[in-house]
Amino acid sequence: MSYFDVASSAPLHPVARQALQASLDEGWADPSRLYREGRRARLLLDAAREAAAEAVGCRPDELAFTSSGTRAVHAGIAGALAGRHRAGRHLVVSAVEHSSVLHSAEVHRREGGTVSEVPVLRSGAVSPDAYAATLRPDTALACLQSANHEVGTEQPVAAVAEACREAGVPLLVDAAQSLAWGPVAGGWSLLTGSAHKWGGPAGVGLLVVRKGVRYASQGPVDERESGRSPGFENIPAVVAAAASLRAVRAEAAAESARLRELTDRIRARVPELVPDVEVVGDPVDRLPHLLTFSCLYVDGETLLHELDRAGFSVSSGSSCTSSTLTPSHVLKAMGVLSEGNVRVSLPVGTPAEDVDRFLAVLPGTVAAVREKLGAPSATASAVTAGRDSILVDALGKRCPIPVIELAKVITDVPLGGTVRVLSDDEAARLDIPAWCEMRGQEYVGEEPADRGTAYVVRRVVL
Amino acid sequence: MSYFDVASSAPLHPVARQALQASLDEGWADPSRLYREGRRARLLLDAAREAAAEAVGCRPDELAFTSSGTRAVHAGIAGALAGRHRAGRHLVVSAVEHSSVLHSAEVHRREGGTVSEVPVLRSGAVSPDAYAATLRPDTALACLQSANHEVGTEQPVAAVAEACREAGVPLLVDAAQSLAWGPVAGGWSLLTGSAHKWGGPAGVGLLVVRKGVRYASQGPVDERESGRSPGFENIPAVVAAAASLRAVRAEAAAESARLRELTDRIRARVPELVPDVEVVGDPVDRLPHLLTFSCLYVDGETLLHELDRAGFSVSSGSSCTSSTLTPSHVLKAMGVLSEGNVRVSLPVGTPAEDVDRFLAVLPGTVAAVREKLGAPSATASAVTAGRDSILVDALGKRCPIPVIELAKVITDVPLGGTVRVLSDDEAARLDIPAWCEMRGQEYVGEEPADRGTAYVVRRVVL
Repeated sequence: MSYFDVASSAPLHPVARQALQASLDEGWADPSRLYREGRRARLLLDAAREAAAEAVGCRPDELAFTSSGTRAVHAGIAGALAGRHRAGRHLVVSAVEHSSVLHSAEVHRREGGTVSEVPVLRSGAVSPDAYAATLRPDTALACLQSANHEVGTEQPVAAVAEACREAGVPLLVDAAQSLAWGPVAGGWSLLTGSAHKWGGPAGVGLLVVRKGVRYASQGPVDERESGRSPGFENIPAVVAAAASLRAVRAEAAAESARLRELTDRIRARVPELVPDVEVVGDPVDRLPHLLTFSCLYVDGETLLHELDRAGFSVSSGSSCTSSTLTPSHVLKAMGVLSEGNVRVSLPVGTPAEDVDRFLAVLPGTVAAVREKLGAPSATASAVTAGRDSILVDALGKRCPIPVIELAKVITDVPLGGTVRVLSDDEAARLDIPAWCEMRGQEYVGEEPADRGTAYVVRRVVL
Repeated sequence: MSYFDVASSAPLHPVARQALQASLDEGWADPSRLYREGRRARLLLDAAREAAAEAVGCRPDELAFTSSGTRAVHAGIAGALAGRHRAGRHLVVSAVEHSSVLHSAEVHRREGGTVSEVPVLRSGAVSPDAYAATLRPDTALACLQSANHEVGTEQPVAAVAEACREAGVPLLVDAAQSLAWGPVAGGWSLLTGSAHKWGGPAGVGLLVVRKGVRYASQGPVDERESGRSPGFENIPAVVAAAASLRAVRAEAAAESARLRELTDRIRARVPELVPDVEVVGDPVDRLPHLLTFSCLYVDGETLLHELDRAGFSVSSGSSCTSSTLTPSHVLKAMGVLSEGNVRVSLPVGTPAEDVDRFLAVLPGTVAAVREKLGAPSATASAVTAGRDSILVDALGKRCPIPVIELAKVITDVPLGGTVRVLSDDEAARLDIPAWCEMRGQEYVGEEPADRGTAYVVRRVVL
């Protein structure tokens, strides 16, 4: 069995387990009490805060433990916006932030604030210049992840932080995906993290607010954690989180080099082994352990299921794997293929053999899914052509069927002829242009239709 | 060493420890993922939800796990108020709720809602009639704890729930202090709990919302826990919480009878062993393991410190033990003495010998604190009297000094004469009337003064 989805959640690091067990006996009392059990709990909490602060690169009194990374993001954004309400009500986020950031932005919008989403390049990264151009005199807060959780692309945090500093805008960095590998460089103002992403226990997030940053906690008052995170402190988990962060950092340099070789291998080999694949995300400026690719004519959910049967746990940003039946907002913002999407994120210690086994299994698995769906083979493009224009009715059909239907008829029109694909599947908006780019056909655009949308493709190559 | 502060936090129950350790290997993955690690995590989560729901007496789909009891209260009140915003913006709470309830009420008030606080009797209980009279056509939500966390008094939840049902108002019950002992009777609509109060781990709260209760989650959207509790699920802790709740329930009947004997013993013996003590809270309708008393002329912080040195961990609602230097709002609402306040809450399994040792140690400890403070002895009340009226300037002096100064001079005025105590200590407002009640002197009332407040006492007994 190979678990390749550490970007969702990492198995508990052995050091986290030891620290958790060791602190269960000492860490259960209320650290605000002055009796001995309370004092012992306080000592553990203080030591954990110092260790975590050192790993993050901040002062202990700048760091609060929250109950999750999501809570850290929610609190951090709300608190920073409120602290800066005199500056204005404009919030800047990148288009590829984690949902906890985007959902916080929605709340801000609903409450009368304004939000700008900075678009990303096809690599998934924002351009520092584009980010800087979005900052306004009334910008209260800017948010940028350290690295993307779906494609691994590292963001230019230091450059954006500098632009924010010049504009006098605090920058909140969601560092959930990268904290295992090192501190976040640059002059950020707030930072969030999540312990279960680095092998710590669930139930622990980090919220760092630099001294001097205006911040006003929202919600009901609670004295714990400098008033920034309500609820009784979860000390054994906090101790385990801090200890495991130190432990993964101690092995980060060696392990990151090793995992980067493995992910480079997958990035290079998958397009050789599997036809019609798009590897997405920045090839160089990326997390060492994470890569993503999409497979044309493949149903993501079926692919994940088959890979699970073959012993590989991976995740996907395909629309069929989301509860809302829309493709991942990250892939959408990048403008890349979303069908048959697979994210591989390797845990620390993944043996090379597991990766080789994955590369051995993948081609047959993808081929089987494609065959089941009746996908056209890449080579069988007949040159014979009939009518100048064809309308494909794919209404009610879900990803990847609209693209498969398109591929099946493209050779039925002559060069210069057009195919209109009528679809009400959100994924088609992303995947039909992506198919055109992969195939070298011309994507003309979309036209409104009585039901769904018509996506127009012109045949320009054989 | 005797830990007598389980109402703050209970040591981890052995079953919780076992369940936690057993689920660390299976419960770390994301339960929303469909691969095997995710499915295993989901099974654990579902089983824990069923076990917790059975213990609470609700359907599994009515129960969400939160990251703390505080979070459950915050979310429950905000969600119920928002769900009922068409009914009105009136919130009813008792005056002795946990701070998480009162702080939620503050937020509601700040946002333009209205809040009624139902006063309590000297026992700490609300009167069901008084509670019912506070309900209005625009009442969106009513809150009542199952039992008080500081004095142990059980609230008439079933009667209040019935009044709420008749008025068409949902009732939220904060059951944090009582869930270990049994389900909450009566037709409540929402219920909250906290695992570390019953011997479960920190990091787990319960929020139950009965089917049919209007509820609208507030804050950023998050799909986990039916949208009611954002953040990655803490499955090992949730499993441990559910398992330990079952375990404490299995021993609840026997242990509650045994602990009630021990707390009855303390309630009876303390006033016999220690002069000038007021035992507070309902003597019968109360939690089995918790009791509270206050000692005249005693500094609570010093008393706690001395008891800690003697091996007893207890807590206090005295002003000197709070960060705001005000007495506990619970003691204030009850109108009972707050100085030298001691809360004893016995963990499951407390040996009778520990209680006897406490009773042996307490009298000498209190006497030593009193001696250090120069407190008047109860017997040395000289009958000699001088001026008709005396002004005691206790400005800048903190509890229990103003009461000690009063006691020292009361015999210097003749019967019918008055003592004015000038004090700027919040505790005086509560403790001077309480002293009068204990001594049989007449409390005339308070008068405004240039600095602080003048508390007027008339000598009516020798």
